[in-house]
Amino acid sequence: MPHEILINIFNMNTVGHQSPGLWKHPRDRSRAYRDLETWTGLARTLERGLVDGLFLADVLGVYDVYGGTPEAALRAGAQVPVNDPMLLVSAMAAVTEHLGFGVTCSLGNEQPYVLARRMSTLDHLTKGRMGWNVVTGYLDSAAKGMGQPQQLGHDRRYDQADDFMQAAYKLWEGSWQDDAVVLDLERRIFTDPGKVRRVRHSGEFYNVDAIHLCEPSPQRTPVLYQAGASGRGKKFAASNAECVFVNGPTARVVATYVKALREEAQAIGRSASDIRIFSMATVIAAETDAAAKAKLEDYRRYIDHEGTLALMSGWTGIDFSKYRLDDVLEHVQTEAMRTAIDNFTSSASDRKWTIRDIAEFGAIGGRGPVFVGSPASIADQLERWVDESGVDGFNLAYAVFPETFTDFIDVVIPELQRRGRYKTAYAPGTMRHKLFGKGPRLPSSHPAAAYRF
Amino acid sequence: MPHEILINIFNMNTVGHQSPGLWKHPRDRSRAYRDLETWTGLARTLERGLVDGLFLADVLGVYDVYGGTPEAALRAGAQVPVNDPMLLVSAMAAVTEHLGFGVTCSLGNEQPYVLARRMSTLDHLTKGRMGWNVVTGYLDSAAKGMGQPQQLGHDRRYDQADDFMQAAYKLWEGSWQDDAVVLDLERRIFTDPGKVRRVRHSGEFYNVDAIHLCEPSPQRTPVLYQAGASGRGKKFAASNAECVFVNGPTARVVATYVKALREEAQAIGRSASDIRIFSMATVIAAETDAAAKAKLEDYRRYIDHEGTLALMSGWTGIDFSKYRLDDVLEHVQTEAMRTAIDNFTSSASDRKWTIRDIAEFGAIGGRGPVFVGSPASIADQLERWVDESGVDGFNLAYAVFPETFTDFIDVVIPELQRRGRYKTAYAPGTMRHKLFGKGPRLPSSHPAAAYRF
Repeated sequence: MPHEILINIFNMNTVGHQSPGLWKHPRDRSRAYRDLETWTGLARTLERGLVDGLFLADVLGVYDVYGGTPEAALRAGAQVPVNDPMLLVSAMAAVTEHLGFGVTCSLGNEQPYVLARRMSTLDHLTKGRMGWNVVTGYLDSAAKGMGQPQQLGHDRRYDQADDFMQAAYKLWEGSWQDDAVVLDLERRIFTDPGKVRRVRHSGEFYNVDAIHLCEPSPQRTPVLYQAGASGRGKKFAASNAECVFVNGPTARVVATYVKALREEAQAIGRSASDIRIFSMATVIAAETDAAAKAKLEDYRRYIDHEGTLALMSGWTGIDFSKYRLDDVLEHVQTEAMRTAIDNFTSSASDRKWTIRDIAEFGAIGGRGPVFVGSPASIADQLERWVDESGVDGFNLAYAVFPETFTDFIDVVIPELQRRGRYKTAYAPGTMRHKLFGKGPRLPSSHPAAAYRF
Repeated sequence: MPHEILINIFNMNTVGHQSPGLWKHPRDRSRAYRDLETWTGLARTLERGLVDGLFLADVLGVYDVYGGTPEAALRAGAQVPVNDPMLLVSAMAAVTEHLGFGVTCSLGNEQPYVLARRMSTLDHLTKGRMGWNVVTGYLDSAAKGMGQPQQLGHDRRYDQADDFMQAAYKLWEGSWQDDAVVLDLERRIFTDPGKVRRVRHSGEFYNVDAIHLCEPSPQRTPVLYQAGASGRGKKFAASNAECVFVNGPTARVVATYVKALREEAQAIGRSASDIRIFSMATVIAAETDAAAKAKLEDYRRYIDHEGTLALMSGWTGIDFSKYRLDDVLEHVQTEAMRTAIDNFTSSASDRKWTIRDIAEFGAIGGRGPVFVGSPASIADQLERWVDESGVDGFNLAYAVFPETFTDFIDVVIPELQRRGRYKTAYAPGTMRHKLFGKGPRLPSSHPAAAYRF
């Protein structure tokens, strides 16, 4: 029997998220990211669609690699302004019962002692539906906001992340025993102090000498998301991640990554099925293939090329403002750009790409595929992608908010259900239960288990 | 015409808050602090009572001055475990329209760039109902959690706070012009980059070189709460605070502070009415004076003396574990203890205090008065306190949660309304509008106004 496909919805506390310029579309409502009703409404919609999780991206800086200033990003509304995602969770949790939350928080601007409490608080409030997308940051502009001239180098950021995770695991897994809160009315004891242990962590980047401030939450360690694609990033993900978010233009490219990641996890004693992998995709669905194509064409009229290139410059480190939109890639490309372009386009394709093509490719779809068509056609494409790549599901971005999501829920999910490739009810239990069929704690094969009380 | 009395409700994302041991009372529900329903239910109740604000305290450490360990605090459930308060706001905002939120966040564990975004996010989500209680921290245990051997000295913490506030004001008030987000469909411009300014702050403690990540929120700078009582703390409050939270055992003690604070604010060009002052109090109300007294006696049976002394040890720095409960104060007291005791008791009283008395005094009422009686009697006491002390209202703590609050709302508020001392409907507008009759921005007399774009 084929596996059910997992679905995360991808969003960010900003306008337009992955689709610069589409805020101008008459039906786009992403401009209302500032309103609580937008988020409680989205959460209700996703739970109606039995969606596994809402994955919230975040950056704590602006995209200022393009032209060396944030002007292009500001003009286009390309992930700026951007509000804090973690503060949305409790409102959405209050109107849902099953939807999971995967919230991005960069290590660079938090202490383990403080972040561990934030996550435990949300795991309590959501009754075990909290996930954390561990990111190390990639924008120097974020570091500058916090008084540093630039961020740490790429591999050093992962050293820092390793240290952070150790400290956080000790707090979540090693400070309170499950039965520490005794509520003994006779002996007048709330917590048995003998069952609470001080964490002493002395690392290269972080020191902690304290008890965790929170009593045990349902999952303890939140479900851990990660998206490391580099060698060092993949190693980190193989060691720590339970859910991995992968970007790739073709199923074949993704398959290579998936295989390597699962092997690397197995090499350190984890099971290949300990990791759920989500491939980023954008689905443009309508009743017929022709209607879906027309919808995509309509969307493309609103693309902001400069804004999209500003995002891409931030992601790749290449300043695309140095080229004209009609420049053909083979004339301008450097090795760095070749590598970057491979992240956006199918290397199998032999067409000539201009900078404009790249921008249009990026503005709808980002670094993942765009599936366009009728429900049956979409379902075919999703099934094929999953079967060829070995991923467990998708992380779906929107082009027009919330239309891209409501279209998917209203017409594609019923089709997947008919095919036995999508659940017809939520499984009981915490987010970890729902994703892995067991929980609520991390499995004993996870490195964090070594820190248990 | 007498002023209407302002009411804040005082709580914390923990069990028992100011009343160690009362979690054992059969009607106490503070143990359910982990559940979202507790908070959305509280928010609805407070809005029904036309309460001005929910004031959420926080500590990012444990009370381990008592005996040099957190054991007594853990055993009693004395403000440990303690979850993050800021993450509660969006859920409560979603079920209310007018209630303000004053959330405590210590400077010591945040960067201005990051905290400014958190506050702006919540000011957007609440549509201008966000307040920030600026605290510098007082527990070494919090510093140890973040890898420092101890916190900065008292006055240095205020130097740090001054630096933090300057950076935060620049981000909130000085980075975006009101009309920076233009949403120009023709020219395809979301934000006009010419109306967004990079903040460059180079201070002793904090550096920022970044634009604020959020577009202008309704209030920009959240309503600023502070509770500085020391000379240096009072100076900080006079310069920055819009709402001040004061503790004092008698109206006369509080009056002295109120007068000095308003004078200090005026000395730097602010108006005396630019600051709303809230006196901490606990109200035990019932239909008759006798029933209220019986209720208080019932509550007192559940007091945890050791837990209360653990809190007091943290607040004062005195290790009360060195004394026995029956020790009479005049035999044990040092000058430091005399000063501390004066914070808990009326200095006018000439009774002999034992350590036990102090604990019982502290467990219900904390460092403020306890008003006990029928609605009419309570209203008399509240009116007298306001008129004698010059405060604008109260910050009401609970003994039993939420009973202390629901009693107040159900029987005392109607009595105050009959006397014309409490509003009968919320005023329109932001939290600042509601508190000061004008807004939504800080008045031009506030020092932050100097940083405007």
